[in-house]
Amino acid sequence: MHMPERIYFDHAATTPLDPRVVEAMLPYLTENWGNPSSIYAEAQEARRGLDGARKTMADLLGCRPQDLIFTSCATESDNLALRGAAYANRKRGNHIVTTAIEHHAVLHTAERLEQEGFRVTYLPVDSEGFIDIEELEQAVTPETTVVSIMHINNEVGTIEPIAEAARAVKARNPHTVFHTDAVQAVGTLDVNVDALGVDLLTIGAHKFYGPKGVGALYVRPRTPLQPQQLGGSQEKERRAGTENVVGIVGMATAMRLAYEEFDSRNRLYRHLHDRLIAELPEAVPYTQITGPRDPAKRVSHIYSCCLGYVEGEAVLLGLDLAGIAASSGSACTSGSLEPSHVLTAMGLPLEMARGSLRLSLGWDNGEADIDRLLEVLPQVVSRLRSLSPTWPERSGAASP
Amino acid sequence: MHMPERIYFDHAATTPLDPRVVEAMLPYLTENWGNPSSIYAEAQEARRGLDGARKTMADLLGCRPQDLIFTSCATESDNLALRGAAYANRKRGNHIVTTAIEHHAVLHTAERLEQEGFRVTYLPVDSEGFIDIEELEQAVTPETTVVSIMHINNEVGTIEPIAEAARAVKARNPHTVFHTDAVQAVGTLDVNVDALGVDLLTIGAHKFYGPKGVGALYVRPRTPLQPQQLGGSQEKERRAGTENVVGIVGMATAMRLAYEEFDSRNRLYRHLHDRLIAELPEAVPYTQITGPRDPAKRVSHIYSCCLGYVEGEAVLLGLDLAGIAASSGSACTSGSLEPSHVLTAMGLPLEMARGSLRLSLGWDNGEADIDRLLEVLPQVVSRLRSLSPTWPERSGAASP
Repeated sequence: MHMPERIYFDHAATTPLDPRVVEAMLPYLTENWGNPSSIYAEAQEARRGLDGARKTMADLLGCRPQDLIFTSCATESDNLALRGAAYANRKRGNHIVTTAIEHHAVLHTAERLEQEGFRVTYLPVDSEGFIDIEELEQAVTPETTVVSIMHINNEVGTIEPIAEAARAVKARNPHTVFHTDAVQAVGTLDVNVDALGVDLLTIGAHKFYGPKGVGALYVRPRTPLQPQQLGGSQEKERRAGTENVVGIVGMATAMRLAYEEFDSRNRLYRHLHDRLIAELPEAVPYTQITGPRDPAKRVSHIYSCCLGYVEGEAVLLGLDLAGIAASSGSACTSGSLEPSHVLTAMGLPLEMARGSLRLSLGWDNGEADIDRLLEVLPQVVSRLRSLSPTWPERSGAASP
Repeated sequence: MHMPERIYFDHAATTPLDPRVVEAMLPYLTENWGNPSSIYAEAQEARRGLDGARKTMADLLGCRPQDLIFTSCATESDNLALRGAAYANRKRGNHIVTTAIEHHAVLHTAERLEQEGFRVTYLPVDSEGFIDIEELEQAVTPETTVVSIMHINNEVGTIEPIAEAARAVKARNPHTVFHTDAVQAVGTLDVNVDALGVDLLTIGAHKFYGPKGVGALYVRPRTPLQPQQLGGSQEKERRAGTENVVGIVGMATAMRLAYEEFDSRNRLYRHLHDRLIAELPEAVPYTQITGPRDPAKRVSHIYSCCLGYVEGEAVLLGLDLAGIAASSGSACTSGSLEPSHVLTAMGLPLEMARGSLRLSLGWDNGEADIDRLLEVLPQVVSRLRSLSPTWPERSGAASP
């Protein structure tokens, strides 16, 4: 199939691999293939790659190399964080606090923990997706062992006040383990574990131009964490399994580049994002931005809105035919007919939530991409609306 | 550092990537980077790669594509198999049967399940590492929900009678889920899930010239299995997390090549293995082969022995200096001072188990490698023995 020039606006779902990352990975696909747990020369280069990657990421995050556990993806990191901290602290209490707008990797793990006898409080959010610090404080009790609040919401880009939340939780109960899913943060924010004050932090490489199939969990020293994947003594007995050396080297390289370049990436994303905020609702009437109205409170790379009187999936198909890739929310729930749990939690009426559109930016995007989108999207939406029985401006008028 | 021509005899720990596998992976590191869960054109190539890999592996194993769950490694597959089957069947019973010589990915998971209230029977093995079918039959009760027996022992190469064991278990209790860790089998045996009669089967790619960081679990239709990693709806809601497409494509390619070539690989391994069996004990006195004496009952690529009056680790260091990579058992337990649980279970006295040596063959090995080993190993061992106070042939004689 010949594919015409495409425009990709779904970087929050996944990113292409940075060619510089591929280049860093290649030696580990060819020469440096040893098992890093072995003792002979073949293993040394693999071990060196692994150690170097750990040092690189630790320096960026402001932690010690041994505070990082390499995992197979952010989902595994989230599962390990919640289950690991909940079970390691079970003697202290059985209460977990999280939010209604977490990724399913956190929410479904919390639900499983409920089935296993834990009590979970799901904090509500306001219409812009923010948690309320006072509500968080009230939720934390002496029995609260884990709090998990995402750094940036993946559907609407809301930047949660993590440092403030972590301080509030620790003031109420210094034993509570504070976890944040920071999957959407690396690449646009200067993520530092001490500045955030978190105990556990989830990273997934393929959101910042690194490879799929690899992630990490930061673990603050002395944080009780029960290992979940058992077997060999890799990762200081906290995560068994032969290390995905090539993936880990790719992740560390991508993360270094993300930190080196987040200022310039941010400038680009902010500019394009501002254009979307200003121009999209003009080009497409009955559009409501979702997430924070204040651009400073949204992450720069995620623009999200709801288009009235259309189905999000139909819009995506129309855009795809015109060469534009976008999404209606999380890729992990594609194909689901349920409205987004994030938009529902933010109080959006069902008929608006169904017209959800997320445009997530990358450094391969430019002005021309926004121009093209603003040309195509109104046509796609108009055509769909003209077919909708509920469209108020329909010629011939809707039946009463 | 200039590295002279090296000889690698540790293919049971990990294998180099087959250049044909790397070639198959490359397009998924460059063009086909989409998230297979998305709906637009960018995702289609990734989805096609994923579907093609699943079909390839299913055809080789004799199952349906939907019977395979892709995981991050064999360790994850083992954890998922044991925990998933134990918890999904908890209402039926709480008894698990496994063997004393499993990989730690199974053993440590079984121990965790014991802590969580399950009862586990660890079957003993004979001096060659074989389970006893009668003992297995006696162990299985109406409360037995899971039996896990490895296909090939990774330290000594014993081929367990899996088909016979699965039949025996099913005859005693048709509800019991039968799992086998087949990590060392793909590449030398024609692994077929129906011929084996197993319900769950673990595969790890980096043991057969595929990439690290990817594995699979075969699941027979209607086998109850509780998912362990929760989040998105990938893998039909049995294993959440964005798929490691490039790794999965690499694994399927490596597996296809392994099946296409296992006859020729086997012929080479058998020949080299026969030479080791015949010539190594002649070259190095006080050597005892471990595992089956009958070559037909050992997997072709794993030769193992114990060298009297030496420490295995010291032998490995001597071999490494001479350019030869070998191991004393499992890479996952390197650095451990404990004697191998496999050799201990086989009844080897501690002083012999400490001199364990495993030489595992690959298709990069040839006659000259065996020649060189048989030249170097006697020198290494002689030097070490001459320093050992317990060496009976020591000049000056040992103190009484």
